[in-house]
Amino acid sequence: MNSADRLIERIIKTANPSVIGLDPVITEIPDCYKLGREVKDDFVAEAELIFEFNRDIIETVYKYVPAVKPQSAFYEKYGSAGIKALEKTVAYAKSKNLIVIEDAKRNDIGNTANAYAEAHLGKVCLINGETAPSIQSDFLTVTPFLGSDGVEPFINACELHKKGVFVLVRTSNKSAFEIQDALTDRGITVSEALAEYVSAVSERCVGKSGYSSVGAVVGATYPEQARALRKIMPKSIFLVPGYGAQGGSAKDVLPCFNEDGLGTIVNSSRGILYSHTSVNERKTVTKEEYLKKVKNAVLTMKGEIYGALKSEYPNIIY
Amino acid sequence: MNSADRLIERIIKTANPSVIGLDPVITEIPDCYKLGREVKDDFVAEAELIFEFNRDIIETVYKYVPAVKPQSAFYEKYGSAGIKALEKTVAYAKSKNLIVIEDAKRNDIGNTANAYAEAHLGKVCLINGETAPSIQSDFLTVTPFLGSDGVEPFINACELHKKGVFVLVRTSNKSAFEIQDALTDRGITVSEALAEYVSAVSERCVGKSGYSSVGAVVGATYPEQARALRKIMPKSIFLVPGYGAQGGSAKDVLPCFNEDGLGTIVNSSRGILYSHTSVNERKTVTKEEYLKKVKNAVLTMKGEIYGALKSEYPNIIY
Repeated sequence: MNSADRLIERIIKTANPSVIGLDPVITEIPDCYKLGREVKDDFVAEAELIFEFNRDIIETVYKYVPAVKPQSAFYEKYGSAGIKALEKTVAYAKSKNLIVIEDAKRNDIGNTANAYAEAHLGKVCLINGETAPSIQSDFLTVTPFLGSDGVEPFINACELHKKGVFVLVRTSNKSAFEIQDALTDRGITVSEALAEYVSAVSERCVGKSGYSSVGAVVGATYPEQARALRKIMPKSIFLVPGYGAQGGSAKDVLPCFNEDGLGTIVNSSRGILYSHTSVNERKTVTKEEYLKKVKNAVLTMKGEIYGALKSEYPNIIY
Repeated sequence: MNSADRLIERIIKTANPSVIGLDPVITEIPDCYKLGREVKDDFVAEAELIFEFNRDIIETVYKYVPAVKPQSAFYEKYGSAGIKALEKTVAYAKSKNLIVIEDAKRNDIGNTANAYAEAHLGKVCLINGETAPSIQSDFLTVTPFLGSDGVEPFINACELHKKGVFVLVRTSNKSAFEIQDALTDRGITVSEALAEYVSAVSERCVGKSGYSSVGAVVGATYPEQARALRKIMPKSIFLVPGYGAQGGSAKDVLPCFNEDGLGTIVNSSRGILYSHTSVNERKTVTKEEYLKKVKNAVLTMKGEIYGALKSEYPNIIY
């Protein structure tokens, strides 16, 4: 099975098209995780904290969500120790059958793009001439600024290794229009041209589910736009950021879905990890109390999205 | 001194506006570096090979070039062990007074962009509430696909920590036009709009040299375009890729420079590291023979660029 099929299977099994962003921020993690750790100048204590926090989050959510999305920046902060925490997080998530979407927005051309694809989706060369897998994510986010020859090496890796990508097509931030709404030489916007490109290459990675491992990052700010992009990319799974803490609601994300209730996975990071616990509460909350809030936030989000989907699309297949 | 001043000082001192790309590719590194290493499944042998190769390259070039540019992808391939090799490479280069340009093309928005900026240019938060520097590059390459609010956090870090960025403005690859030549709502291309943005924010980071730590990645494919971008961004240093192996010549890069012979740093990676030694020669070449070829390639490139600059701009200040 390719990454799309595995993700769709998990979405149906959990009846939950959402993904938990694993964005470990040390200043926001409750104090109970920090006690008894000795800080040195090698970031090992920070990396251990991050992994143990993630492990508890994964243990709490894995029965209810199909996927997790570690955001690379929060691990890169702590250098090689931080990447070690990322590797352990990915391995632990996979041991719980979670799909791992590595949000790293990689981009380059030629042999450098190839190297990124090998690092995050494929296999890397060893001294003895053999190859071995490295970080082993199921999906990687990819930024298409350099044009199609900067995306192609990632698509090749998806085909070869049955992995997936989410190509940034239209983001939801305030200044997204500056580049993404510019008009290409074909008289359509950059986002529309990217959607057509994604649609074309997605055909190379369609699984038994009918969905492709070549997906798209699509913000849910404008329902009309999401509907239009959905039509251009019928087989691509949309990764939709910004649920909860960033202001998005269940109703906002509906146009991103197909009528089968599939085709989209909605991300929440802060809403699941932090925003339910005040700065003051973080000082005294126990791990048990805190993880209960995390679980409640996951189930609330699941209920909201599933409820909205069911009332909008009565033929949802799960 | 900010990163721009330090780079300009080094360019003048070495009379060489070029940068060596540190792209360690295990299949291209000569066999003499691989002997006697035991391969395990933790990538430590590969990471040690990469660092020792880089150390020899740095030792060979540091007197003749102002800067090195490690490309993150080639280190990420080997996970946390690879990032350890990157950290050691950066530290070693800085101990030799080289300016380090980390080519990682990072991009995101909000607190994630902040996290990238902290990781690569600023300081990161520790468990005890204090902060410490992490990877410590002088410059980071940044991809602006998400718009100005995705670049702003990096500019803030440059101001705060006296570090620098090179924002991708116009790349030289075949499909670069797809997005970078699209027309914005102001009737100019994406690249021109980016150049105007870079010019505006570059004012916030101008050093005593008159140059800003906010630079631009500009391909040297079209001389007219390079000249136009040079005019829009008079205070920004251009990072120009593609010298040597990728087909660019000294004449091609001249329009990127100002008349003082400054304002641009030209990168060569393969041309310095690999293309002077055939696949067959890599099997038998000794380290001494190989590093002599590296040194010759560096001096040849320096001679070509300096010669072309001197004949085009008689008032060059070094």
